[in-house]
Amino acid sequence: MKNHNRNIQVCFSPELFKFFTDRKSLVVVVDVLRATSSICTALNEGVNSVKPVEHIFEALEYKGDDNYILAAERNGKIVKGFKQGNSPMIYKKENVKGKNVVLTTTNGTKSIELAKKEHEVIVGAFVNLKAVANWILNCNKDVIVLCAGWQNKFNFEDSLFAGSLVNELLNSGRFESRCDSALASKDLYIKAKDNMYEYLSTSSHRYRMRNMGIEEDIKYCLQHNIIDIVPVLENDLLVIGKQQ
Amino acid sequence: MKNHNRNIQVCFSPELFKFFTDRKSLVVVVDVLRATSSICTALNEGVNSVKPVEHIFEALEYKGDDNYILAAERNGKIVKGFKQGNSPMIYKKENVKGKNVVLTTTNGTKSIELAKKEHEVIVGAFVNLKAVANWILNCNKDVIVLCAGWQNKFNFEDSLFAGSLVNELLNSGRFESRCDSALASKDLYIKAKDNMYEYLSTSSHRYRMRNMGIEEDIKYCLQHNIIDIVPVLENDLLVIGKQQ
Repeated sequence: MKNHNRNIQVCFSPELFKFFTDRKSLVVVVDVLRATSSICTALNEGVNSVKPVEHIFEALEYKGDDNYILAAERNGKIVKGFKQGNSPMIYKKENVKGKNVVLTTTNGTKSIELAKKEHEVIVGAFVNLKAVANWILNCNKDVIVLCAGWQNKFNFEDSLFAGSLVNELLNSGRFESRCDSALASKDLYIKAKDNMYEYLSTSSHRYRMRNMGIEEDIKYCLQHNIIDIVPVLENDLLVIGKQQ
Repeated sequence: MKNHNRNIQVCFSPELFKFFTDRKSLVVVVDVLRATSSICTALNEGVNSVKPVEHIFEALEYKGDDNYILAAERNGKIVKGFKQGNSPMIYKKENVKGKNVVLTTTNGTKSIELAKKEHEVIVGAFVNLKAVANWILNCNKDVIVLCAGWQNKFNFEDSLFAGSLVNELLNSGRFESRCDSALASKDLYIKAKDNMYEYLSTSSHRYRMRNMGIEEDIKYCLQHNIIDIVPVLENDLLVIGKQQ
């Protein structure tokens, strides 16, 4: 009997994406701390669109335009000359409704650029995990989760999100995986899920971010399912996805 | 107080090694199924040296020389024109004592080639885990475990070995790690260690190798500490290491 289950794979680093790309899978880009959590938040708070750009000079082209919020982060900090970095906390309905965001970050926006070349791209984080899982179950594609990682290395928070999504999709009975990274992510997520903040306290990213004053951001980003929208990339802009 | 603990990192793929290389750490290359398990076995059974070569034509240069055993594997199978592939079972004292091996494999020998350019290289597998841990504790370097992986992707068996070594070294109290891949490997190892053969039954490699008739090889390669030597790379040859 032919097996009709769909396949889910996890790619731990943008540098490895070339070994996964197949021109047809749906790619879920994740950068939990903080790019994709921020993108979900911005759109949920009423931003029209988020334009992810790889380079700082591309963001600067929008300077002076009141319709745009410029956000630029490198290595966890706001880039000099910008008012906003990578925090999801800056997006509050009363300030951002109807505006657009141009965003460049160390790892997250680079991964979106990479994935969009040959794939349909959506954006996920713990904040919209369930919405992403439902989006995937309602379409008909195989899935690759692309973890932004940290400077091209594996990181905990993105692979834990990948694991949470693998867990949801395998539990649906409509997916299978023989991808070792997917199965390892799932096991790590199951181990960490009830105590994720403490689990991440061992991680390099948390260490890097200590004393950056973003503990509140981290706690925010680890919340599950507080946002019910899925950002999709359309014509180089991330907008709220609508499924038929 | 200055912290004198040494650092251990884990690199999940040869493709990511460029982000880890620092020209000074000791590199432990691992390809549990089966290159590094075979190298440990060959030296333990009395082979003088193992010459890892990347390309098949390099192995063929030794054809006809009775002092050399030629072993070549690609994608789990013996390469056409060779009598030996990547099985550790072919090395029995009575047949191999005093001979040399020239070995080329899909993933393992490539990783050795990569690491040797800028690093001191030793070879590890579950069969000599304790010997590798002791070797490391008796030297004075930071450590990078380079997982050969499968076609540049993360795989379970090599990262589980990495995790077992991280576990040993952190438990010694003389190492620390803020490397997420190292800490994730350790957690996966702790989950899998009492039932590793079954755990790996979910993995892609095991699936690939099913029906290749190498179940016995896999069971052999998952045994811990049956070999008490450490292969070290000296002048492009792997030989039994001797520490002062």
